[in-house]
Amino acid sequence: MALWYELVGSVAAILTSISFIPQAWKVYRTRKTDDISLSMWILFTTGVTFWIIYGFFLQDWNIVGANGVTALLAGYILVKKIQYLIRPTLRQEI
Amino acid sequence: MALWYELVGSVAAILTSISFIPQAWKVYRTRKTDDISLSMWILFTTGVTFWIIYGFFLQDWNIVGANGVTALLAGYILVKKIQYLIRPTLRQEI
Repeated sequence: MALWYELVGSVAAILTSISFIPQAWKVYRTRKTDDISLSMWILFTTGVTFWIIYGFFLQDWNIVGANGVTALLAGYILVKKIQYLIRPTLRQEI
Repeated sequence: MALWYELVGSVAAILTSISFIPQAWKVYRTRKTDDISLSMWILFTTGVTFWIIYGFFLQDWNIVGANGVTALLAGYILVKKIQYLIRPTLRQEI
């Protein structure tokens, strides 16, 4: 039984972590973030950071690992969203 | 000490759950999902469902509650993303 629910936790951790890769890739490729909600990514990135702290307390490396990867990807999306809001011309420059 | 990390878990749960409200609201208000990644929301909604199962196994109601709310919001965003992909004209009809 123990192995079974740890497997479920790992699948959950992997899926929710890798899920941000396509969004980060889409932002990198298209440089378009208009339809993405700024407040979502601010709240989400902050929340994920709290999950990392929570995971450390629990010594649950599923939670720490998953949210560590998520924080990096979410952080990238958030930075780009803010960048394109502040300097829309940045999209054409590079 | 126990109260402290449970508080961190609750804050993490609340922040990551409510973070999807602004994105769902933005999709509802603007009906624009072009910059949102379809594969992200498919992977993410599936992953969140696994987190709910994991939380049930652990009897950790932070995890179950947070991911339950998230699954509803993420599911809404996913359905709208698919809807507007299949029938772009849907945006103007209503």
